[in-house]
Amino acid sequence: MTSTPDRETAGLTPEQYQRKMQRRKDVQAERLAARSREKGLIIVHTGNGKGKTTAALGMVMRSLGHGYRVAIIQFIKGAWEPAEKEALSRWEDQLVFRALGEGFTWETQDRERDIQKATQAWETGLEYICNPDFHLVLLDEINIALKLGYLDVETVLGGLEQKPEDSHVILTGRGAPPALIDAADLVTEMTLVKHPFREQGVKAQPGIEF
Amino acid sequence: MTSTPDRETAGLTPEQYQRKMQRRKDVQAERLAARSREKGLIIVHTGNGKGKTTAALGMVMRSLGHGYRVAIIQFIKGAWEPAEKEALSRWEDQLVFRALGEGFTWETQDRERDIQKATQAWETGLEYICNPDFHLVLLDEINIALKLGYLDVETVLGGLEQKPEDSHVILTGRGAPPALIDAADLVTEMTLVKHPFREQGVKAQPGIEF
Repeated sequence: MTSTPDRETAGLTPEQYQRKMQRRKDVQAERLAARSREKGLIIVHTGNGKGKTTAALGMVMRSLGHGYRVAIIQFIKGAWEPAEKEALSRWEDQLVFRALGEGFTWETQDRERDIQKATQAWETGLEYICNPDFHLVLLDEINIALKLGYLDVETVLGGLEQKPEDSHVILTGRGAPPALIDAADLVTEMTLVKHPFREQGVKAQPGIEF
Repeated sequence: MTSTPDRETAGLTPEQYQRKMQRRKDVQAERLAARSREKGLIIVHTGNGKGKTTAALGMVMRSLGHGYRVAIIQFIKGAWEPAEKEALSRWEDQLVFRALGEGFTWETQDRERDIQKATQAWETGLEYICNPDFHLVLLDEINIALKLGYLDVETVLGGLEQKPEDSHVILTGRGAPPALIDAADLVTEMTLVKHPFREQGVKAQPGIEF
């Protein structure tokens, strides 16, 4: 557990509480002042929990709201989920979406073809990464291709080095390799605490999973 | 580490590989068939990592794409981030947004007023939770109010029980109390693996944090 401010402040008078919060505000202000750099980030969402692609879509939405151009490259799926397509089609002028996969390994059942598709998806992604007009590139489920050895992590790291200074790249999928985590700026692991599909026989539902 | 399919399948002939993947596909199909229930979910995004609100926004976007009505109640912030507002204003007819906070504790510096605001935000949220026209209600940062003791967890759990069977509620924020996690269907902990603000002095950036 982290600190619990309710206990830290229990029993304080309103004046003592106010002084304590003012000190906390000063500390926050100092911290913010020390964080002055702007920098394009290499962002990794990994782990076995939900929310890896979903949180990336939230960043896509914010970036679109700022007026930035965004590219999404899908490494596994071969088509856009209809609701996401409907939602994001409102930014056709700012957003590029390329679904370059053909499904999970148990669907495609052809390793050589999967490797070929992953390589093509990476080459397409790299074009957008290198294009300074695109402020954000989402390489969705690329970590799975890296984990399976369909893409070489050194190739991907070499490509990420060509990224313009101020643009961001998000790499999602479980099993992100350690060398990618080392090279990344912002890494979040989504951890499954509780899941209704497994535990309650509940199926994937519109609005939540797709 | 989880299983590494690359090692499991290394050295297989294409035919052996295809048979192995077909078996995996059959297992997947069985699992899916066992998950036949549709059920409105209580979803919790907690932990110290990034992506709690961001992943909830991704679900909001998907739900809007499905044509559902969505309500977002902000428990801490008192205004919408401009880029999110710009992005989501394209669904004014489907989306309700109520920012009912006044800032973090070190900004407001008044515990009694914070408690009053949290209570008002909860009462507003509860109206939307009980309203069957809304398919998804996002209670953003409510876990902080619960953690600070500004809201009683039993009150919130009692309110969640009034939720219509097929609608979803997402509760975000670090420090989700154990009783909420027990009551939830889907719980994801976002864990901080690496963060550029702390480690590299990089500030919050448009499109990523807001």
